[in-house]
Amino acid sequence: LNKKKIFNDPVHGFITVPCDLVFDIIQHPYFQRLRRIKQLGLTDFVYPGALHTRFHHALGAMHLMGIALSTLQSKGHPVSEAECEAAQIAILMHDIGHGPFSHALENSILAGVHHENISMLLMKELNKEMNGKLDLAIKIFTNTYERGFFHQLVSSQLDTDRLDYLKRDSYFTGVTEGNVGASRIIRMLEVRNDKLVVEEKAIYSIESFLNARRLMYWQVYLHKTTVSAENMLIQTIRRARYLAQQGIKVEATHALAFFLNRDITQADFQNNPEYLNLFAQLDDHDIWAGIKDWCSHPDKVLSFLSRGMLERNLFRIQLTNTNPGKEYIQQLRKQVSMQLDLKGKDLDYMFLSGQISNSAYVSQGHAINILTKEGNVIDVSEAADLPNIKAMSKIVKKFYICYPKTISL
Amino acid sequence: LNKKKIFNDPVHGFITVPCDLVFDIIQHPYFQRLRRIKQLGLTDFVYPGALHTRFHHALGAMHLMGIALSTLQSKGHPVSEAECEAAQIAILMHDIGHGPFSHALENSILAGVHHENISMLLMKELNKEMNGKLDLAIKIFTNTYERGFFHQLVSSQLDTDRLDYLKRDSYFTGVTEGNVGASRIIRMLEVRNDKLVVEEKAIYSIESFLNARRLMYWQVYLHKTTVSAENMLIQTIRRARYLAQQGIKVEATHALAFFLNRDITQADFQNNPEYLNLFAQLDDHDIWAGIKDWCSHPDKVLSFLSRGMLERNLFRIQLTNTNPGKEYIQQLRKQVSMQLDLKGKDLDYMFLSGQISNSAYVSQGHAINILTKEGNVIDVSEAADLPNIKAMSKIVKKFYICYPKTISL
Amino acid sequence: LNKKKIFNDPVHGFITVPCDLVFDIIQHPYFQRLRRIKQLGLTDFVYPGALHTRFHHALGAMHLMGIALSTLQSKGHPVSEAECEAAQIAILMHDIGHGPFSHALENSILAGVHHENISMLLMKELNKEMNGKLDLAIKIFTNTYERGFFHQLVSSQLDTDRLDYLKRDSYFTGVTEGNVGASRIIRMLEVRNDKLVVEEKAIYSIESFLNARRLMYWQVYLHKTTVSAENMLIQTIRRARYLAQQGIKVEATHALAFFLNRDITQADFQNNPEYLNLFAQLDDHDIWAGIKDWCSHPDKVLSFLSRGMLERNLFRIQLTNTNPGKEYIQQLRKQVSMQLDLKGKDLDYMFLSGQISNSAYVSQGHAINILTKEGNVIDVSEAADLPNIKAMSKIVKKFYICYPKTISL
Amino acid sequence: LNKKKIFNDPVHGFITVPCDLVFDIIQHPYFQRLRRIKQLGLTDFVYPGALHTRFHHALGAMHLMGIALSTLQSKGHPVSEAECEAAQIAILMHDIGHGPFSHALENSILAGVHHENISMLLMKELNKEMNGKLDLAIKIFTNTYERGFFHQLVSSQLDTDRLDYLKRDSYFTGVTEGNVGASRIIRMLEVRNDKLVVEEKAIYSIESFLNARRLMYWQVYLHKTTVSAENMLIQTIRRARYLAQQGIKVEATHALAFFLNRDITQADFQNNPEYLNLFAQLDDHDIWAGIKDWCSHPDKVLSFLSRGMLERNLFRIQLTNTNPGKEYIQQLRKQVSMQLDLKGKDLDYMFLSGQISNSAYVSQGHAINILTKEGNVIDVSEAADLPNIKAMSKIVKKFYICYPKTISL
Repeated sequence: LNKKKIFNDPVHGFITVPCDLVFDIIQHPYFQRLRRIKQLGLTDFVYPGALHTRFHHALGAMHLMGIALSTLQSKGHPVSEAECEAAQIAILMHDIGHGPFSHALENSILAGVHHENISMLLMKELNKEMNGKLDLAIKIFTNTYERGFFHQLVSSQLDTDRLDYLKRDSYFTGVTEGNVGASRIIRMLEVRNDKLVVEEKAIYSIESFLNARRLMYWQVYLHKTTVSAENMLIQTIRRARYLAQQGIKVEATHALAFFLNRDITQADFQNNPEYLNLFAQLDDHDIWAGIKDWCSHPDKVLSFLSRGMLERNLFRIQLTNTNPGKEYIQQLRKQVSMQLDLKGKDLDYMFLSGQISNSAYVSQGHAINILTKEGNVIDVSEAADLPNIKAMSKIVKKFYICYPKTISL
Repeated sequence: LNKKKIFNDPVHGFITVPCDLVFDIIQHPYFQRLRRIKQLGLTDFVYPGALHTRFHHALGAMHLMGIALSTLQSKGHPVSEAECEAAQIAILMHDIGHGPFSHALENSILAGVHHENISMLLMKELNKEMNGKLDLAIKIFTNTYERGFFHQLVSSQLDTDRLDYLKRDSYFTGVTEGNVGASRIIRMLEVRNDKLVVEEKAIYSIESFLNARRLMYWQVYLHKTTVSAENMLIQTIRRARYLAQQGIKVEATHALAFFLNRDITQADFQNNPEYLNLFAQLDDHDIWAGIKDWCSHPDKVLSFLSRGMLERNLFRIQLTNTNPGKEYIQQLRKQVSMQLDLKGKDLDYMFLSGQISNSAYVSQGHAINILTKEGNVIDVSEAADLPNIKAMSKIVKKFYICYPKTISL
Repeated sequence: LNKKKIFNDPVHGFITVPCDLVFDIIQHPYFQRLRRIKQLGLTDFVYPGALHTRFHHALGAMHLMGIALSTLQSKGHPVSEAECEAAQIAILMHDIGHGPFSHALENSILAGVHHENISMLLMKELNKEMNGKLDLAIKIFTNTYERGFFHQLVSSQLDTDRLDYLKRDSYFTGVTEGNVGASRIIRMLEVRNDKLVVEEKAIYSIESFLNARRLMYWQVYLHKTTVSAENMLIQTIRRARYLAQQGIKVEATHALAFFLNRDITQADFQNNPEYLNLFAQLDDHDIWAGIKDWCSHPDKVLSFLSRGMLERNLFRIQLTNTNPGKEYIQQLRKQVSMQLDLKGKDLDYMFLSGQISNSAYVSQGHAINILTKEGNVIDVSEAADLPNIKAMSKIVKKFYICYPKTISL
Repeated sequence: LNKKKIFNDPVHGFITVPCDLVFDIIQHPYFQRLRRIKQLGLTDFVYPGALHTRFHHALGAMHLMGIALSTLQSKGHPVSEAECEAAQIAILMHDIGHGPFSHALENSILAGVHHENISMLLMKELNKEMNGKLDLAIKIFTNTYERGFFHQLVSSQLDTDRLDYLKRDSYFTGVTEGNVGASRIIRMLEVRNDKLVVEEKAIYSIESFLNARRLMYWQVYLHKTTVSAENMLIQTIRRARYLAQQGIKVEATHALAFFLNRDITQADFQNNPEYLNLFAQLDDHDIWAGIKDWCSHPDKVLSFLSRGMLERNLFRIQLTNTNPGKEYIQQLRKQVSMQLDLKGKDLDYMFLSGQISNSAYVSQGHAINILTKEGNVIDVSEAADLPNIKAMSKIVKKFYICYPKTISL
């Protein structure tokens, strides 16, 4: 079997599978599952092209990792074949633990289990199957490998994850402003004291990268319609779970039914290996199939939410820079309560408020470091000729309130 | 409610909703369903980016229709506002009858009912809801409107459907050679005797368009892995239906269960309005949810096929230019039969052979007509300075045989 | 004669000549001259693709003006056909007064005559030839038309000039980060009290636009190699002029010879109509032809500079954030003086120092104004959720010193 | 001095200078001269973006050569570092002998000396300067190196020259249909018996490539306005040379004056080394500077032609598929003669007729060879499933007649 496969990627051109081990990982059902998990959850409600998957993103990030490492090699930093393979595998699998709709359902299907923990568990499982061949990749992933810059290429403010997803999300949404100059930045990477740094002449590209990321957050990732859709989805799943746990029949695929019927903790996960396999059977389709059947469910709340999702009849959302205040929320909630004739817990599924936040640049302890022409290493927010990057390190919060557009269930 | 919505389209830029009626159609559940039907069925198994939907394509085609009509207007052909709106609606809805996975399952879920008939029924239904506002659009769609070129813009060898899907499929697959010069061709459109023609200077663009289409057929639409995957999918559905009709429990969403449990004809459809609504509830998710549950179905054939789909463990496929011959097929079939210990009808789900064909240019009665500088109208295959377009009007057939890679169920 | 010409523009697609008058202007030798003046002067020394011309940019800006005006119309602001034509003509001609190498030689060939004054004179000349048909265009250009937003579309911090050149310069240089979302911004334009404003939801696009512009300044427009090349070019012309005015023979085309041989003021220009026509004969080729012949000129300074230009053997340049100080400059100058055996005025051609500056956002009196959802108009630097735009309104200065790399003439 | 330069190329991304020797060649005045020679001569009269140079193209072709060779290496064909460097140098310098306006003036400035001979002479000269380091590159260029596929990558129907220029010309003109899938084709290259072949699965990409090339010929390279402009340019130079050789003063730069004043043969060139250096001083600017001065030349023919060039007032051109016939030509010539009051030789500068031809695919002896799955090597026109490539191997000729639009000098 020829494992030198080439993937067509409209974003980076052609992506070559670098070695047999990577091929085997890609073939594995754990990884193939990512074909069925959209990178941007429900964002296609706003940007109809945003249907790309975690699968495609992982391949793209692996591709960029390859370029980054050969750049560093050409600058005199030795990278062994084993390290190169391991780093590519680490980034390839960094998202393997994502559940349906990526971040959106993280706390609804598996309350309190972070996707990175699941990634970890799945990697270990794969490593067992592959006889320890992923040891180094896991070390890099968990930041226990001595040469720290490998981990930074997997996870930091300038990792190949972000460089790929910004470019990719820009391509598929059509939001051209998010098209970061990934090639340029990668070519400017350097290493000092085993830490990733960037050559000084890339400083404006870094600025542009941070700005693009900030824009993508507001324009895409935190777009108010997406926030509204995700909240509606979360409530739908919450309601389905509530009914299921009350003993009411709620149609669902095997795997989804399992998770609707019980509350599972991180500890449960570690103690019951089969839970992991069940989780690894979930993807976007389980959710959609449920929603479709629930449109005619006798529970009005569930059917209302499900029809809303299916027909894109989403919650109205108010997004404000300042906290609207308890009183205002209370008043609005009352109104909705009256109009929908819902109270207490039932109303909670229909009336929501919360916060979203965007931190374009995080400095302390995680800075992007610039290597000056004189050989010094300094935080990019210090290196810039304007206080604009510093300005971006402030976290921006917005407040939202969601509730149904219509007045009658 | 502001209905002047703008869609972000990475292919054409921004797409403006031209009027309130179009907005209402887009909002309708019939049309929103197209968000959940991939344009290229299972092609993402080969080109991971090919996840775009009929929804996005329909918007794109509508956009090109707008440009085509304003081009014709600027060349002195009067187009009323009503005609413009109707033509845009006709192309917007041309694919509304597609079922899950577009063409792939056309004959498996609804044997003998063509998607264009369903489009027709759904349009009529919508027209009723909208108090006859779609009359002219339907006339154009059915080619009963007196000004024939409107229909040609909806359906002909140079319609806005093709101009959009080639560009779009090229964009999302990354097969750059399929990126046709749609803008150039549209700007060269003309009308003579109520028929669509193309200015002579566009002749090389037409050649390029036909060639791009031919390439996309072999490289994408008829890619052997896609053919294999679609055959596997068809067999999966066929087996599920067979079991269901035997009285064996087969998990499925409400809508899918309905269609698995009975054979429905075109006549049934016309007589039972609720059938149409049930069909309009189907999309790709129903199929995938079924496949996922069927992976653990007691029927070995169904579970084998389903796992194959889910884990991308597809049939091996042999594609040949010449008919492999009955004898060869018989021999291979025997081998598969022995290896899998399957016979008769059961074997039929696992061993398949058939033909695919590609006709790059169809001349008789459907020619692309060129308007020469002297004012004559001639078939493009005559107008070309080489017999290359004529060469392309021959239908090319290929033969395939599909069977499992593995030897044990 | 059919004047409905279409230009192929890789940046915006196809550009249609909107009317006969525009066609006649494009045909005019004054405008055709812009085909021979590169948009970015000597930038192709750094970015080899940056060879695009003022001609192409002017067409692109005209195209964007058309889109901007039809957007405003669709939002209920009446724009007459005459206004539309005039605004397109105003932007088409905004750069018509540029001399060879655009900004680079502005003060060397014609000391003290700003290119905008020459644009003005050439427009008036054209207006005479065209029997006053450009009256309204000139009013808009000079900001004497009562509806002020037309002028703002020609010249302001968000004019179609910038929207075009950033996109175009990004395309031809390959600096992808400069690819501003012009389409999105244009679609968000509005008018309040005859002033151009931008809808609030475009705020991140504006941020991105300002950032892209800032990046293009440092990465492209003020790239140190370009600054060095431009300084070398200026010195070459200055030396040629010095020699010519000393009575020494300096080869040059007729038009260039004329301007080398005398110092011309703004007043001269207005008093001698033939000066304008002579100026309108100059373009990049005159300069290059001179440089080529001067490579073998007996004057060592001139031939040294000319060979440097021709063979891309440019000045060494030091770029610093802080003023290097008189002492340091004096020391360096002395060194160069010794090495080259040049003194006084001769040395001035070989040793240069100066400043460049970049003001990403200018607020006072020229703000980009945001139209909030509540209907208020506020400065974008106030409207942003971070002080980052305010940060960008600080002017950044850098200091440069240029001198020959080599030590012997 | 760091010679690891990176060039920004909007077509291929970033181009890295692979080694010091390549850097030195790029720095050499012979190569820098290519910055001043447009790849497509006068094509920017039709496509205003087509201003890219031989310099940029040569870098791009070198870049593709690098990818092609590493592809072949990864398929098991050993390529030494020396071979890789040499092949990249060979393609880098393949166009070094081009004169002003590339092909357009090939027979006017230097009648009877082909640009490839000059390339050869310049390479030898460079090789001398570089102490024989170009020996292998020259062997590859002249096809005297034993491993023949290296030469084929430099010059054949599928060389990196064409793969670059089609992509590049498509990018800068905006004729999107010419954007060949160079990456895909390069990844499908193979070698059998030291000959370049292409894997069978690339067959549709080859078809698409040939078609794109054919389209680019008619749409761009042989565009009738370009043919007209080139003919006008040739006549301008011919007239200038005629006058110069009559002893009439014709303004020109030193280098151009030299070539206007005498007729130089291939033999002269080889015997007089300084001729080569003079030729290496010519570029597009010499021609334009001449044209500009000649606009006011007392010779009416020269000034008429020059003004036509400068103001884009080109010859009218008739392009026909069939030979218009001597009689028709004679008649037209007479008319022009009368209208312009020109006769004999003078008329020859104003009335021209000739042929252009386009051979999309050349088979005999130069075929593109396909490596079938079975391991056979066959001509692509045989391998195709349709006779369309065969159809393209016919040479298409067109006939043109050029003459002034205006009737009075």
